[in-house]
Amino acid sequence: MIKLFGFSLSNYHNKVKFILLEKGVDFEEVPVRPGAAASEDGKSPLGKVPFIETEHGFLSESQAIADYLEVRFPTPALMPSDPWQAAKVRELITYCDLHVELCARQLYKQAFFGGKLTPEDIERVKAQLTKHIAAFKELARFAPYAAGDTFTQADCAVYVSLPLAAMASKLVIGEDLVAAAGIDWKAYVGLIEQRPAAQKIAADRKADQARSMAAARAEKLVP
Amino acid sequence: MIKLFGFSLSNYHNKVKFILLEKGVDFEEVPVRPGAAASEDGKSPLGKVPFIETEHGFLSESQAIADYLEVRFPTPALMPSDPWQAAKVRELITYCDLHVELCARQLYKQAFFGGKLTPEDIERVKAQLTKHIAAFKELARFAPYAAGDTFTQADCAVYVSLPLAAMASKLVIGEDLVAAAGIDWKAYVGLIEQRPAAQKIAADRKADQARSMAAARAEKLVP
Repeated sequence: MIKLFGFSLSNYHNKVKFILLEKGVDFEEVPVRPGAAASEDGKSPLGKVPFIETEHGFLSESQAIADYLEVRFPTPALMPSDPWQAAKVRELITYCDLHVELCARQLYKQAFFGGKLTPEDIERVKAQLTKHIAAFKELARFAPYAAGDTFTQADCAVYVSLPLAAMASKLVIGEDLVAAAGIDWKAYVGLIEQRPAAQKIAADRKADQARSMAAARAEKLVP
Repeated sequence: MIKLFGFSLSNYHNKVKFILLEKGVDFEEVPVRPGAAASEDGKSPLGKVPFIETEHGFLSESQAIADYLEVRFPTPALMPSDPWQAAKVRELITYCDLHVELCARQLYKQAFFGGKLTPEDIERVKAQLTKHIAAFKELARFAPYAAGDTFTQADCAVYVSLPLAAMASKLVIGEDLVAAAGIDWKAYVGLIEQRPAAQKIAADRKADQARSMAAARAEKLVP
């Protein structure tokens, strides 16, 4: 059975979990905190989650895992069968993961973890993120799904990451840059959360958040 | 005919060009400087190179392009036919592109473009890059090719990017962090440059470098 290592607050963990759930794959979720995923035998050499274990060994990097799952469990398909359309979905996922999320991630320290950024850093990220969200929007369709009229891997990426960019920019910059770019991400989330797989992702994330808060309170890290 | 937009000093341009050359694809190389690849009609929404044009439209992001070319021009194969082995090659490419090259890129400003980093920035990148190269090394095989005994897409990525990380760290940090990690990248480059495609990449890069220097001299940007 495929094991998925990670935790339910991680958006990249949830991207892979979403794919597994949509495909109806029987898998085991093994809780691992980042960094704790120690670098032994190339499990996940940077200690990042998610990673999976199969009968062949370990594999990290969410898109390498996503591409593997698509070949191993082709039904239901989450990638277009047409190679060009599949390439456009991969391009869109890269814009979501690399250009929007990785950029917005610079805000998480202050948005979600009680840290503090300098005004210069905030201005720099704001300019960068505004540009990157506009680029993402050029490629995205939301018609009604991220890549067009069919639910694809792109939705598994966009659903778990785009709201983080929206919330982090709202909290740190004072403006939801995703909404400001003209993307109605709340309506999109509402559409995606009609799916049982997304409902499970959201419920598990909330439970993990409650557990994390309770643990932090027990350690008196938060009031 | 496929058009490849970019320039011969760009490692990601060369990654895609290497794949096209290895596959014997008849393509046209269209010189475009980054940023100049203006964002019209989703050609390359962030103005980044490389991007390609096919009869279907435009596509950016080197790995999305690489995956597309593999399906469109399957012979000679540059990805293992076994899905797990293919996934491990994709994972390795991500470690090369995202974790090593994108990290080393923070040094290029000082290494190659006459800029200046703060000592704190240099220390931070050194710690990060040391860790990322070690992680890359855990996954890489160099036996003798990056992913094992067969030349793959991973070599197209590693050949164009790993030497940049080595040279930039040597120039800025005073230590070649790739060699320090125990990777004999010069021997690897020697092996890869036995291939006519790599020889063309290297020759075109040198010619582009000479042209860039001459243009900079003409504009009196350099002595």
